[in-house]
Amino acid sequence: MISDRYYLGVDGGGTKCRARLRAADGTLLGEGLGGPANIRLGLDRAWASIMEAVQAALAQAGLDAAVFPRLHVGLGLAGIVTAADSVRTRAAAPRFASVSAETDAHAACLGAFSGRDGAILIAGTGSAGYALINGQGHAVGGWGFEVSDEGSGASIGREAIRVALRAHDNLAPETGLTRQIRQRLGGSPAAIVAWVNDAGPADYGRLVPDVLAHAAKGDVVACTIIAKAAKELETYIRHLHALGAPHLCLMGGLSAPLTPWLSPWARSLLAAPEGDALEGALLMARLNIPSPIAKSALP
Amino acid sequence: MISDRYYLGVDGGGTKCRARLRAADGTLLGEGLGGPANIRLGLDRAWASIMEAVQAALAQAGLDAAVFPRLHVGLGLAGIVTAADSVRTRAAAPRFASVSAETDAHAACLGAFSGRDGAILIAGTGSAGYALINGQGHAVGGWGFEVSDEGSGASIGREAIRVALRAHDNLAPETGLTRQIRQRLGGSPAAIVAWVNDAGPADYGRLVPDVLAHAAKGDVVACTIIAKAAKELETYIRHLHALGAPHLCLMGGLSAPLTPWLSPWARSLLAAPEGDALEGALLMARLNIPSPIAKSALP
Repeated sequence: MISDRYYLGVDGGGTKCRARLRAADGTLLGEGLGGPANIRLGLDRAWASIMEAVQAALAQAGLDAAVFPRLHVGLGLAGIVTAADSVRTRAAAPRFASVSAETDAHAACLGAFSGRDGAILIAGTGSAGYALINGQGHAVGGWGFEVSDEGSGASIGREAIRVALRAHDNLAPETGLTRQIRQRLGGSPAAIVAWVNDAGPADYGRLVPDVLAHAAKGDVVACTIIAKAAKELETYIRHLHALGAPHLCLMGGLSAPLTPWLSPWARSLLAAPEGDALEGALLMARLNIPSPIAKSALP
Repeated sequence: MISDRYYLGVDGGGTKCRARLRAADGTLLGEGLGGPANIRLGLDRAWASIMEAVQAALAQAGLDAAVFPRLHVGLGLAGIVTAADSVRTRAAAPRFASVSAETDAHAACLGAFSGRDGAILIAGTGSAGYALINGQGHAVGGWGFEVSDEGSGASIGREAIRVALRAHDNLAPETGLTRQIRQRLGGSPAAIVAWVNDAGPADYGRLVPDVLAHAAKGDVVACTIIAKAAKELETYIRHLHALGAPHLCLMGGLSAPLTPWLSPWARSLLAAPEGDALEGALLMARLNIPSPIAKSALP
């Protein structure tokens, strides 16, 4: 397999990273998997994971490091927040033909709208929005579940515990959900307090299926929590649309269950993604124009 | 100083404990100070702190351990949640004439209303309510700032950070408060996220003076946060009043600044405490009837 140029996209998160290799004509040549590539874990660790995925993708195509001078690479990596992050990530790269590096949200948004204007809203354990308008990125939210990440799984789970404790104290209605949440966490407030002491966002997020199941049956407390989360997501949707995104892709584990809870105007703005974050990263590799970092993400 | 009986009250919290000694006729004989006596720190540590305060109070009166058989002790201790907590705390006591042990909230409520029906609402770094009706205790809230403690200093501070980040993202209005909060925590969202990672309830609580100062000047975001906190406290006040408490003492560092923000109906239920938690503990010592633990605090 000989070619003038190769394009490789990488989607790197906190648990794994993926690479996809395409020929200049777009032919899919190979894919590979690597370890965590969030640059907050350190550039050495991130690049080791990235190269693991790159080598695997090249191997699938019967290629090796010899093609590096003809390999254009686009990286969408979690943890890239400032322009300086992008610069030092690229500075640590092997001698590829070119490298561009942006946030994973940027790559996801590029992929979802094939490079056209649009926005994504990720609603999983955390939540965060990103819009690309005239090549300019705008990041909103996603600052962590303690003080941000409204409408996320972690926020929903934490709110479920809050109302379960209020129900115990007769400050809020007792329902099937409030009983189940307390039961799941040990029954007594003392057990719940102990659980909370050790809980992180993913632990709170694991309570979401209970909330969704009860909301589906009309449990008044569960419905209130889910409706509030949907309202929070709508705030993001309204903002991203106002920035100029004609359409928006809702992504992450809560995308499917929360979409029916959105207001009609918000649902009417939703679109299915055209491509994934790897396609967005491939587009970065192909365009080879390091995009400006989101203005609102600058320190 | 010879007497048939002595009464000693102890108010023990997470940072220190205090003891007060009175003669059978009520004469104040001495006071003493000791280390942390929250029983979650362990009964050994709690009792070492209590005895430190007890010995100091006895020494002021020219007394020593020889009076233990004539000393009736009442303990109001943070960390006592269940009836079993009270039993094991008393079981670890020296050979006093009698010992009763309840939560610090119980002692504070007894002291505030001299043993009559009433309720207290503590609004400091955390928040918690407690009502004593016909000798029956009812605890509400106070399960920690992650999932409870509405209207507390920690909740107010965290909400201030949340709106400051939303203002940064153009999701909420930018005001003097939102600018000041971001500036105080390092300016950039990245710096704020790092601050939040290491922050506990007391750290969030230290932002409250900023919020109060801006609310006093009419800052719309600050006013919204403080009004919301007052509304949360009103939920507790309404509940404690509905349980049967004719009046209520608002206590803790937020008592003075938040009282003017309460609705007239809530303010009209407030009373000044007649005595402090030490007087409540002394009343426990004098009555020597271990009061029933709050029903809602039972596991």
